Amino acid sequence: MVAFSKDNVYNGSIIKNEMRLKPMNMTNEAMRTAYEAALAEYESWKAKNLKLNMARGKPSSAQLDLVSDILTVLDNHADCKVDGMDARNYGELGGLPCAKAYWADVLGCQTNEVFVGGSASLTLMYDLISKAYTHGLKNSPKPWCKEEKLKFLCPAPGYDRHFRITESFGFELITIPMTENGPDMDMVEDLVKDPAVKGIWCVPKYSNPEGIIYSDETIARFANLKAAAPDFTIMWDNAYCVHEFEGEFVPFKDIITLCREAGNPDMVFEFASTSKITFPGAGISVMASSAENIKYMEKLLGVQLISYDKVNQLRHVKYLKNKEGTLEIMKRHATLMAPKFRMVLEVLDREIAPLGFAQWNKPKGGYFVSLNTMPGTAKRALALAKEAGVVMTDAGATYPYGIDPMDTNIRIAPSLPPVAELEQAMAVFCLCLKIAAFEKELGI
Amino acid sequence: MVAFSKDNVYNGSIIKNEMRLKPMNMTNEAMRTAYEAALAEYESWKAKNLKLNMARGKPSSAQLDLVSDILTVLDNHADCKVDGMDARNYGELGGLPCAKAYWADVLGCQTNEVFVGGSASLTLMYDLISKAYTHGLKNSPKPWCKEEKLKFLCPAPGYDRHFRITESFGFELITIPMTENGPDMDMVEDLVKDPAVKGIWCVPKYSNPEGIIYSDETIARFANLKAAAPDFTIMWDNAYCVHEFEGEFVPFKDIITLCREAGNPDMVFEFASTSKITFPGAGISVMASSAENIKYMEKLLGVQLISYDKVNQLRHVKYLKNKEGTLEIMKRHATLMAPKFRMVLEVLDREIAPLGFAQWNKPKGGYFVSLNTMPGTAKRALALAKEAGVVMTDAGATYPYGIDPMDTNIRIAPSLPPVAELEQAMAVFCLCLKIAAFEKELGI
Repeated sequence: MVAFSKDNVYNGSIIKNEMRLKPMNMTNEAMRTAYEAALAEYESWKAKNLKLNMARGKPSSAQLDLVSDILTVLDNHADCKVDGMDARNYGELGGLPCAKAYWADVLGCQTNEVFVGGSASLTLMYDLISKAYTHGLKNSPKPWCKEEKLKFLCPAPGYDRHFRITESFGFELITIPMTENGPDMDMVEDLVKDPAVKGIWCVPKYSNPEGIIYSDETIARFANLKAAAPDFTIMWDNAYCVHEFEGEFVPFKDIITLCREAGNPDMVFEFASTSKITFPGAGISVMASSAENIKYMEKLLGVQLISYDKVNQLRHVKYLKNKEGTLEIMKRHATLMAPKFRMVLEVLDREIAPLGFAQWNKPKGGYFVSLNTMPGTAKRALALAKEAGVVMTDAGATYPYGIDPMDTNIRIAPSLPPVAELEQAMAVFCLCLKIAAFEKELGI
Repeated sequence: MVAFSKDNVYNGSIIKNEMRLKPMNMTNEAMRTAYEAALAEYESWKAKNLKLNMARGKPSSAQLDLVSDILTVLDNHADCKVDGMDARNYGELGGLPCAKAYWADVLGCQTNEVFVGGSASLTLMYDLISKAYTHGLKNSPKPWCKEEKLKFLCPAPGYDRHFRITESFGFELITIPMTENGPDMDMVEDLVKDPAVKGIWCVPKYSNPEGIIYSDETIARFANLKAAAPDFTIMWDNAYCVHEFEGEFVPFKDIITLCREAGNPDMVFEFASTSKITFPGAGISVMASSAENIKYMEKLLGVQLISYDKVNQLRHVKYLKNKEGTLEIMKRHATLMAPKFRMVLEVLDREIAPLGFAQWNKPKGGYFVSLNTMPGTAKRALALAKEAGVVMTDAGATYPYGIDPMDTNIRIAPSLPPVAELEQAMAVFCLCLKIAAFEKELGI
């Protein structure tokens, strides 16, 4: 049994894979006493019949109210005529010019590198992989479905929905360990020498779930990758590009320029959306890449639609205006998000840190706290939490195929519940962590 | 050279494929005189530098203004809480229950047979074919990409965007002639005995472009098809299900019930959208099928998105209410659409009917007039029109691969231009039809 001393409780942005928990400084007897006390407290929580949810990165009702003026920002049909066209009618596959300009401003790229999507960037990512599979990308020797073997790199812990897309197309998913600077680039550089490796999933800023920001060196190494597959694709999901909840906006490099300068202009597709800026699943999304890639993709996308919802694009441009306007909105979200993250970290510091059997990150942006508990106890802890009415992201979800080989990683998503509910949920969750750890240690 | 006598000018809903034009009753000399007069008139039109568009079934600005109250119908964030959930947040893959109920009412099916999509039914159709290709449908022995040979039935003249979807996935497109009752069902029933034939494209009400309504017998024969492929799929695009512009609403049968009753519950997927009810490309769409099919598809669709835009779903339900409310809106569209279709038919009756070299339908709903001109002259006529600033749907677009073997069919889309512009566009178009016909006849 291993644990950290209090000084070693993890304060940085990433949990090192080689870390192992050190023995707790408790006698078996003390542990059994503590276990029984925890069990009794757990039973009293169960009796409250709670229904609390920390499973998904969902904004809270208060956050949605904060931005609900967007509902009426486009209130006049004369305003729908913009950029020489009528946003209410068919046409303009790549999106309204003003919406392209909006995203180019936010991402720091050019307007001709932008394709404005519908209400889900996940759909744009899926469509890219799907079209690579059925038709091939611009530099593909053949459609991916005609390849003997397909592999995709999955930095983990990572985002389950990313992994599931490539899993659903039959890719072999290869886990890449995360470091405090992003994915292990030595491993990535080595693996991309295999032509069956077609791409990698990345969340470069406030990674899901660990909240780390890829270092400049990591980003430069990505831009300079020498991949064997001519259509190797970096899926650069910049989902949290403006999503600080503590401190000032942290600027990020334009990956599209970096790839172009490195001689890899077509290697990256960047994605983002307003799902956590305005309304989740009812915002607008973007896919950005080299102008040539965007032209190629528009040929394929033009078969499936005439354009995404331009009225909603216009509504967003009117409401958010530009990057500066967006950052102002994000400051308002931060006032609601920060107290929740502080609460989570306080409870963990108070309840778990002294026992030293878990470690977690302290992010300044994004939507998650990533916690590694005693190996072999994550599933059990989450099952206990569920039984007491606290729903968390499934154990293993942050790993390819939903299998965490160490059964240790847990993603905490504190954004949805109000602070008072969150405090209850965290109390229950910490109890469950303890019970699972004591059970393991005591061989129960 | 063949032409119709005036009595034979086509008044019904369908142009029979076996029809051939009969000789015009004009001497060569009279024809040359008429040709030169037409040319002179054409030149004077060209000098006007017109910019008129009858290419696509786009609603007019006036129609969009008519429904622009939808912009503000959802103006209160308290209203966003509906059906026990918040339309502004993630979740509910299949759509808001009230949006499902809306579509079930319009289509006459059950709510558990409904999946509510985003702003384009075309995307739902594409996704169905794409997922059949990559993963297979519920009853597929294997994904379609693993099949030796894929064929799809294409009633023609038909909708170019349908044909292009299946063309892009490498299907062999088989043209099915249209009759006044819908696709030639003898041919369909014969062809579906081939297991490589995976489906058929249908627009059952006010077909694009001919505006015909499939007869009850045709619909019954569809529901009772005995297809060799266990995953044979009828793509039932009910795009114009409530789109009358002359006369009363014409009820239609629920194809999902008919297929279930015929023992083919999974054989049909029905599609519709509000693109020509509210805003084109900014409305909501639907896919309806057996409850089992919808369950199966949701498993696949759940990989690519969390849900379509539920805020826009709610906006539409608040604005349109139900089928009855929708029919009221359609009555208002009809007041703008009917004069345009009357104008088109009047000009054709006046300018072309006496010469007898073309035939056309007189629809009561939908968005098009389908015209068959003298074989071998459609392309030339449309090139002339384009040169004079009148853009029409490309010749051949209504046939698989964009090739009209007779070079005869032209799709007229009168909805977009105001009546005054439409009158000009039709004058130019009729001149071009005449010039092309005279050229052909005189061997110029």
